[in-house]
Amino acid sequence: MYTPWGYRGAMHGYEGHKDDLLKRLRRAEGQVRGIARMVDDDQYCIDILTQVSAVTKALENVALSLLDDHLSHCVAEAAAQGGPVAEEKLREANQAIARLVRS
Amino acid sequence: MYTPWGYRGAMHGYEGHKDDLLKRLRRAEGQVRGIARMVDDDQYCIDILTQVSAVTKALENVALSLLDDHLSHCVAEAAAQGGPVAEEKLREANQAIARLVRS
Amino acid sequence: MYTPWGYRGAMHGYEGHKDDLLKRLRRAEGQVRGIARMVDDDQYCIDILTQVSAVTKALENVALSLLDDHLSHCVAEAAAQGGPVAEEKLREANQAIARLVRS
Amino acid sequence: MYTPWGYRGAMHGYEGHKDDLLKRLRRAEGQVRGIARMVDDDQYCIDILTQVSAVTKALENVALSLLDDHLSHCVAEAAAQGGPVAEEKLREANQAIARLVRS
Repeated sequence: MYTPWGYRGAMHGYEGHKDDLLKRLRRAEGQVRGIARMVDDDQYCIDILTQVSAVTKALENVALSLLDDHLSHCVAEAAAQGGPVAEEKLREANQAIARLVRS
Repeated sequence: MYTPWGYRGAMHGYEGHKDDLLKRLRRAEGQVRGIARMVDDDQYCIDILTQVSAVTKALENVALSLLDDHLSHCVAEAAAQGGPVAEEKLREANQAIARLVRS
Repeated sequence: MYTPWGYRGAMHGYEGHKDDLLKRLRRAEGQVRGIARMVDDDQYCIDILTQVSAVTKALENVALSLLDDHLSHCVAEAAAQGGPVAEEKLREANQAIARLVRS
Repeated sequence: MYTPWGYRGAMHGYEGHKDDLLKRLRRAEGQVRGIARMVDDDQYCIDILTQVSAVTKALENVALSLLDDHLSHCVAEAAAQGGPVAEEKLREANQAIARLVRS
């Protein structure tokens, strides 16, 4: 794999959004912990389900941000150079999208 | 069908699965924390996305378990008694299902 | 709650919404036909994708309506009578919900 | 990478899969028509729901194929040329992915 970003070590397109991603992931972690506490406290199923839907949606949005950055940087750069690396990046991105759509 | 939850206040059908739910939620919490660590360590977007899809799927399965228990206990018991409480329980369950399908 | 559907064979709760469901399904059928026409006319991928998302969402809403009616009638009535029929209806409804959430 | 789609107006990457897409869309159209017939014939809700989940999944797969072709052709070619067209194609693709994940 020989691309300029390859040896710069910046193998990720979310560089510019790292703080935002970390903040959202920590909030999601807290939400999951809160859901466990609700179960432990015997809270009402529907209220717990509402929280599970909320955290699932939040994680889905994290995934969409990551994918957006990935396509706009890693995949776009690989595509600009073409060849088997570009093909591999596209194949890999398409599989990640399929997993996301089906999850 | 004569159940005591109405006045005991234990309005949850997941009683019998509490330990299992807590175990799955703690695992999900650890997975979200692991994803934050991956972002912090500048790991590759696609690998992070794979983990986000996995935890989203795990939380979706927690939601389906909760919903199954809720329908089989709270809703079934309310339906057996009929009246406005049954209607309210059904309305509420249908809204939770819609949120889950759309999230 | 005393309902005759058991021996009348009318095993569906969407009775009251039949016309609405048929209208929505015919519109969805027309949308899918329109998408095929777009592909045949070599239209732009993104415009086709927008239509596919729209019809998928429409069908998802049809499914949520059917499920709502099913829970509020068939399942509620079976639950009121209890026993193995109720259990079977609940099991079946939970499986349909899981298929829907995962599709 | 030098491609003529820009001025040929053939703005689609699914060229090579057109027959396959049309076949799948016609099958989906028939499935939706079949679902309307099931409703018209008062068939059992759960059986109808199974068919709705099946056609939704089939349409989702059509969308994933279209998106795969779109990224591998239109977006990759635009990325190779860079500039505002590339940015616009990426923005548009990311929005389509988000719609798909949320539908």
